[in-house]
Amino acid sequence: MKKKTLPLSNVYKLLEPGPVVLVSSCLNHHANIMTMSWQTMMDFEPPVIGCVISNRNYSFDMIKKTKQCVINIPDMSLAKQVVACGNSTGRKVDKFNKFNLSATPAAMVKAPLIDECFANLECKVIDTRMVNQYNLFILEVVHAWVSTSSKKYKTIHHAGNGVFVVDGKIIKLPSKMK
Amino acid sequence: MKKKTLPLSNVYKLLEPGPVVLVSSCLNHHANIMTMSWQTMMDFEPPVIGCVISNRNYSFDMIKKTKQCVINIPDMSLAKQVVACGNSTGRKVDKFNKFNLSATPAAMVKAPLIDECFANLECKVIDTRMVNQYNLFILEVVHAWVSTSSKKYKTIHHAGNGVFVVDGKIIKLPSKMK
Repeated sequence: MKKKTLPLSNVYKLLEPGPVVLVSSCLNHHANIMTMSWQTMMDFEPPVIGCVISNRNYSFDMIKKTKQCVINIPDMSLAKQVVACGNSTGRKVDKFNKFNLSATPAAMVKAPLIDECFANLECKVIDTRMVNQYNLFILEVVHAWVSTSSKKYKTIHHAGNGVFVVDGKIIKLPSKMK
Repeated sequence: MKKKTLPLSNVYKLLEPGPVVLVSSCLNHHANIMTMSWQTMMDFEPPVIGCVISNRNYSFDMIKKTKQCVINIPDMSLAKQVVACGNSTGRKVDKFNKFNLSATPAAMVKAPLIDECFANLECKVIDTRMVNQYNLFILEVVHAWVSTSSKKYKTIHHAGNGVFVVDGKIIKLPSKMK
């Protein structure tokens, strides 16, 4: 998918609505993908993100060791792959290969971008103090990519047990909120 | 609105999709409301939530001092009040009165429930170690309420600058994910 750089000041607009994301990581030339819904914005610019990654996940050690990952945002057309990535482990499966997802090089980190996702946020881990107790990683987005297409991508939001809410209509209200 | 107790094990299903919420707090018999979108689940049961509350907000001191709040989940019918609460400050305005929102007593905390919201999560602050650096409060949900109605409430998700995405269609995929 053709991508362009997204200004870092606009990253929060992608994550604040709460989409399911795919986190890619890479250790010793082995790349993996995990499905994640437990993340929040923590600052606008540079964008800071807090995310909870279970220490039972294969990705946990990869991200803890490399201090890098990419948060990839899938639209609804990737829902089956999102669930497939959540239902399997990188200990047993090469998820890029098995689920037909394409790894492309990132600009600032060694973890790959997932090409089929309409946005990719290259992240570095900036604080691990809450990892032991809460599995909470604090990340800074160091480079962001978004599709050059004008298509309105609809994201999906996990409501538990494989139930997903797809983005519906958009409303605009006069707001002073950022 | 008529409510029933929601089992704590189901709280994540409400927050994981990333809705905008209204946070109510109370200090010295003065109650306030703030609009929030920067929150994430951190554990299933008891439900633990991480949320970022700017130290410029009137609610920041109220929650830091009382170590209590309620996370109220509005549906799309409350979108105007959500924006109005985000555009004003409790330093100058009694938001319950001005925006026609009803404060009802909570079971476990002194902060009130917002009656018009279809779900209310009574929370206690359990960890403030990241408040100084990141404005990150870690909360535990101690009691949860949900409407007794079978209506499918559609939540709203903030995409920046007063743009909100409303819940659309629901898809169910065979998932081993919780």
